[in-house]
Amino acid sequence: MSVPVAVVGASGYAGAELVRILSGHPKARLAALAGDSTAGQRFDALYPAARGLVDLTLEAFDPAALAKKAELVLLAVPHGQGMKMAPPLLEAGLKVVDLSADFRLKDPILYEKWYKHPHSAIELLKEAVYGLPEVNRKLVAKARLVANPGCYPTSIILALLPLLAEGLVDVDSLIADSKSGVSGAGNKATPGNHFGSAGENFSAYKVAGTHQHIPEIEQALGLAAKQELRLTFTPHLLPVMRGIFTTAYADLVEEGTSSKKLTALYKDFYKGERFVRVCEDSLPDLKSVKGSNFCDIAPRVDERTGRAVVMACEDNLGKGAAGQAVQNMNLMLGFPEDAGMEGMAFTL
Amino acid sequence: MSVPVAVVGASGYAGAELVRILSGHPKARLAALAGDSTAGQRFDALYPAARGLVDLTLEAFDPAALAKKAELVLLAVPHGQGMKMAPPLLEAGLKVVDLSADFRLKDPILYEKWYKHPHSAIELLKEAVYGLPEVNRKLVAKARLVANPGCYPTSIILALLPLLAEGLVDVDSLIADSKSGVSGAGNKATPGNHFGSAGENFSAYKVAGTHQHIPEIEQALGLAAKQELRLTFTPHLLPVMRGIFTTAYADLVEEGTSSKKLTALYKDFYKGERFVRVCEDSLPDLKSVKGSNFCDIAPRVDERTGRAVVMACEDNLGKGAAGQAVQNMNLMLGFPEDAGMEGMAFTL
Amino acid sequence: MSVPVAVVGASGYAGAELVRILSGHPKARLAALAGDSTAGQRFDALYPAARGLVDLTLEAFDPAALAKKAELVLLAVPHGQGMKMAPPLLEAGLKVVDLSADFRLKDPILYEKWYKHPHSAIELLKEAVYGLPEVNRKLVAKARLVANPGCYPTSIILALLPLLAEGLVDVDSLIADSKSGVSGAGNKATPGNHFGSAGENFSAYKVAGTHQHIPEIEQALGLAAKQELRLTFTPHLLPVMRGIFTTAYADLVEEGTSSKKLTALYKDFYKGERFVRVCEDSLPDLKSVKGSNFCDIAPRVDERTGRAVVMACEDNLGKGAAGQAVQNMNLMLGFPEDAGMEGMAFTL
Amino acid sequence: MSVPVAVVGASGYAGAELVRILSGHPKARLAALAGDSTAGQRFDALYPAARGLVDLTLEAFDPAALAKKAELVLLAVPHGQGMKMAPPLLEAGLKVVDLSADFRLKDPILYEKWYKHPHSAIELLKEAVYGLPEVNRKLVAKARLVANPGCYPTSIILALLPLLAEGLVDVDSLIADSKSGVSGAGNKATPGNHFGSAGENFSAYKVAGTHQHIPEIEQALGLAAKQELRLTFTPHLLPVMRGIFTTAYADLVEEGTSSKKLTALYKDFYKGERFVRVCEDSLPDLKSVKGSNFCDIAPRVDERTGRAVVMACEDNLGKGAAGQAVQNMNLMLGFPEDAGMEGMAFTL
Repeated sequence: MSVPVAVVGASGYAGAELVRILSGHPKARLAALAGDSTAGQRFDALYPAARGLVDLTLEAFDPAALAKKAELVLLAVPHGQGMKMAPPLLEAGLKVVDLSADFRLKDPILYEKWYKHPHSAIELLKEAVYGLPEVNRKLVAKARLVANPGCYPTSIILALLPLLAEGLVDVDSLIADSKSGVSGAGNKATPGNHFGSAGENFSAYKVAGTHQHIPEIEQALGLAAKQELRLTFTPHLLPVMRGIFTTAYADLVEEGTSSKKLTALYKDFYKGERFVRVCEDSLPDLKSVKGSNFCDIAPRVDERTGRAVVMACEDNLGKGAAGQAVQNMNLMLGFPEDAGMEGMAFTL
Repeated sequence: MSVPVAVVGASGYAGAELVRILSGHPKARLAALAGDSTAGQRFDALYPAARGLVDLTLEAFDPAALAKKAELVLLAVPHGQGMKMAPPLLEAGLKVVDLSADFRLKDPILYEKWYKHPHSAIELLKEAVYGLPEVNRKLVAKARLVANPGCYPTSIILALLPLLAEGLVDVDSLIADSKSGVSGAGNKATPGNHFGSAGENFSAYKVAGTHQHIPEIEQALGLAAKQELRLTFTPHLLPVMRGIFTTAYADLVEEGTSSKKLTALYKDFYKGERFVRVCEDSLPDLKSVKGSNFCDIAPRVDERTGRAVVMACEDNLGKGAAGQAVQNMNLMLGFPEDAGMEGMAFTL
Repeated sequence: MSVPVAVVGASGYAGAELVRILSGHPKARLAALAGDSTAGQRFDALYPAARGLVDLTLEAFDPAALAKKAELVLLAVPHGQGMKMAPPLLEAGLKVVDLSADFRLKDPILYEKWYKHPHSAIELLKEAVYGLPEVNRKLVAKARLVANPGCYPTSIILALLPLLAEGLVDVDSLIADSKSGVSGAGNKATPGNHFGSAGENFSAYKVAGTHQHIPEIEQALGLAAKQELRLTFTPHLLPVMRGIFTTAYADLVEEGTSSKKLTALYKDFYKGERFVRVCEDSLPDLKSVKGSNFCDIAPRVDERTGRAVVMACEDNLGKGAAGQAVQNMNLMLGFPEDAGMEGMAFTL
Repeated sequence: MSVPVAVVGASGYAGAELVRILSGHPKARLAALAGDSTAGQRFDALYPAARGLVDLTLEAFDPAALAKKAELVLLAVPHGQGMKMAPPLLEAGLKVVDLSADFRLKDPILYEKWYKHPHSAIELLKEAVYGLPEVNRKLVAKARLVANPGCYPTSIILALLPLLAEGLVDVDSLIADSKSGVSGAGNKATPGNHFGSAGENFSAYKVAGTHQHIPEIEQALGLAAKQELRLTFTPHLLPVMRGIFTTAYADLVEEGTSSKKLTALYKDFYKGERFVRVCEDSLPDLKSVKGSNFCDIAPRVDERTGRAVVMACEDNLGKGAAGQAVQNMNLMLGFPEDAGMEGMAFTL
């Protein structure tokens, strides 16, 4: 009685993590995997960890074939491919969760500006739902097409959302200093992810207003603040495989807020959210979210400077990609929101 | 209708890994946790990863109290404590899986020689079953008390067992060169596991016949070979958190064996074993067993020297400790042997 | 004809790094090492890397004995000890570079507030020179007592100094988001620096205006800005042994500044500085400063938000501690400023 | 009055390490660097760590041009290139240290068998000196052409040499289990050295008599034993950047040898050797040789099995490549053997 689903782009890191989660899902079953250059190969030849657990061979992408096997497709593909694959899948009657960036921005001009190529499925932009369940839960549940949020944006939006929704901070003062594990850049070997470059090292990249995730963050926070806004975003590369840690800064508009009060406000704001854990007495760390779909958030106030300092921590492949995609899939298929992730990996 | 079980020593690494596996187990449920210095603390205060997943507080060790709550107890305690805790638990009617070294050696004199203190529960040594399911599956299923194998011994015994059982090698030529992750030494901070010592480093310790796991390995392999034997064992410390990689060497008694033939023999020997994966076309690595209960084994022949070279790879906290303990528990409680570990974590 | 010098606290990380640099110094020679609990032990028993290179045994701290052997003493000791050791050493005629925090703050009330104990050598606070050669070169050269800057402060002050000295930014907008390697917390084993905690992890600590380096940074930047100021500082723990990476933010007071212009301004500001490298076409990373006394700085402008984003990178044991201490020693003894560090380690 | 030398292949890891050591050498000076695909680029653009330290641009390989600038050339090139580059350099009157494998094996048939292509400079094989100074010091000093030993061979030969030279072990029982850092495989990005593959992992490769370093090791040990011999060699990949750790095994022919006696024998055998440190009371580790030209060796006896267990530890880029090449260069140019490496990096 399980619902058949398919993963396209299963050879990449996010795709492989989808396979991991879905291989133990109680209500969905992996019916097909598709790849590109990897079509024809067994999944467990690409990821030997899966031997004895996943008995599937990657196929070439074929919407008609997928429509015969599955009811919903998760696209773990690079930007530019999601907008090509989604239309035929929808037409074939499938539901789609797109992990690429293609349906996140509502404005196709903004998309072209930041992603350097025109949008080829503009007609779907209005229908597509931005899949951050903490904001759009009801819309996701009714959607045919969900745009799964980016890894950095998820951590930054969840970190700053309560401050902006409640009008507590100056919208011109927003800064997000984020640190990501190496898996965020994919599994293709490059000089930058050579162990000799990335190991025992730390660096910044795409600084000072140049990272393509900026408009996505500004769109979501602007909606919460009910005004346009801009933030400074600095991404960094951590010498770990998984995890994103964001430290966000914003100037409080009124005096008198304390860490204690702000934490209480966040706990209230995220009340009932299964996958947001507000940290009261401790600070978050990567290890405590590894392999999970949690985003741990610690809001604090620097009373000396009147500034909110909010730390948010997630697994970039979990809540930052595959975990959130399964959360969205669960909503779209009417499953419990945490199905497949109830006892999800916390690891030493 | 799930069976209630308890974990003693839940604050240590093996204990915490037991909690992780059991928190998602379909047929057993975590009914109690016990600690020593950590009694009175919530488990998720010790391991924040468990927030929202495990709602238990550690208790002091009390056999009567545990007997009211659970049917089986897993002891994740240091050697010397298992033999003190097991007797009252058995007396109270509980089944016990002891992860300490206390019931592994059949000979109490040998125990005292290697562990430097006398055995205090000699009367149970005969009854205790050495919990390597690949050898003692039927005995485990009927046992009240199971001695869970050591982390190094599991990898070394599984690597060499077919060679000795089939009489293919010179019993005087056995060497095991093993490499373990840092978690093998526990979670107490010491100069040796300081990040500044263990990170970006590699070293050997307890070399040349001094490691306490030696008699356990020799006992198991001697039973297979039907004769007493001795091996040289060198443990090393790897700069990773989890995993053991053993490279074992043995001189073949006859010429003419090839890697291909030996692999076929191992595949046959371990046929039907859920948690032993014989590697044919590839070599094992730590990443592919991380978080799982698998032991991946690649037997090869160095035809130039007439020597078998067998690599075996496991997660020291999985098949080397907690995973194997759950496997034993499953057998003792009549569950499918892989219950709770069907989709067990394969991770990037 | 080399000048004899001594290191007190040689068993700690900063002390050991001093020994490493000084053991190859062309004009100074290591005449004595002192420790506390390690007195009586050979240095190369503590750091086996030094076998065959350093033939010294640690002594108990004895000002009179040191005065007979050395002309200058480097104190690599915790705060609270520098102010006890410096007075008798000065009295005995020695010059002193104190790596502890004790003589960095001019205001003893501020010291007591942040370090939680009263200052015991207030009479020396005025004489002590804050040993940031890029600011106080001439004073250092004539000093008897130099307060070696903290690791975080060095990177933050060098990052923001030109902006404040030139009046380019709003002094109420300063934020420093810093990430440090594990060696910054010393070589004593704690739960936090256990490989199992610090490895493959990332976290923040002492956030929101609570880290004791804050007044030191504010004192130096306030002097440059010629007004009191406050900054928000967030320290983080990186899973690497060595290195600090600071990302600093400040709102530009005028429009129209570009990354190019700001870089040119920094190049001019630090013209002739041997150990500050302004990055024009690339961004700094930890690996490129490891083992060196360099601080690499990349100033950039986020033109969308009108904010300066300045990255600064150093080895926390190099320019952040021992390297800078040797730089100060060189100035005090009339040596070339880079003596002992001309070919200093750049490593893969 | 320093002697000008050149490095060919300066963009690779071994080449860059040569540049690092030579940039601080008291008697040689870096006169030219040559690369292949990197010709025309500044060295410090490839390795930003060198900014302010090395002011050289890579040239295309041109023997005549090098002969005008340098007296000795170090070839840090892949096998197959050393035998093409050395002849014209020698003809132009230069001395050559070849770090490639091309002149290590005396037998060109053996070379072709293991390296899969014919040797193109057979006439030089007899003249070339195998550059292990501990064996061939005098020959190296007089040589025009030195074949710098391989990284694995250096550690294995130094580990087993005393046992074979003194006839203490069965030559049919030799096993070397070696573990190398990632830099050993070069700086070209491949799936295997992606941080996601090599980090937090451990694996074996080229096992069971297939690694091309085997004949080099057998040649050197056979000369010491005065008979042909074969060994089993298993290379493994460590998740660290630098370092090789070899654990070697050999059956002792006589009973009664103890670890203490064997250690004394090794101390005597390596008496006066600047770069071999025999470990008496401690065991070697990677950290203690990082950045240095030392090989630390701990010989032990497993008295239960009558087997010698010898651990040897070196930096694969130091004594395993660039350090040893400089040691050879020093001998060839009449410098002190440790020139440039007197205070060579011991690092935390």
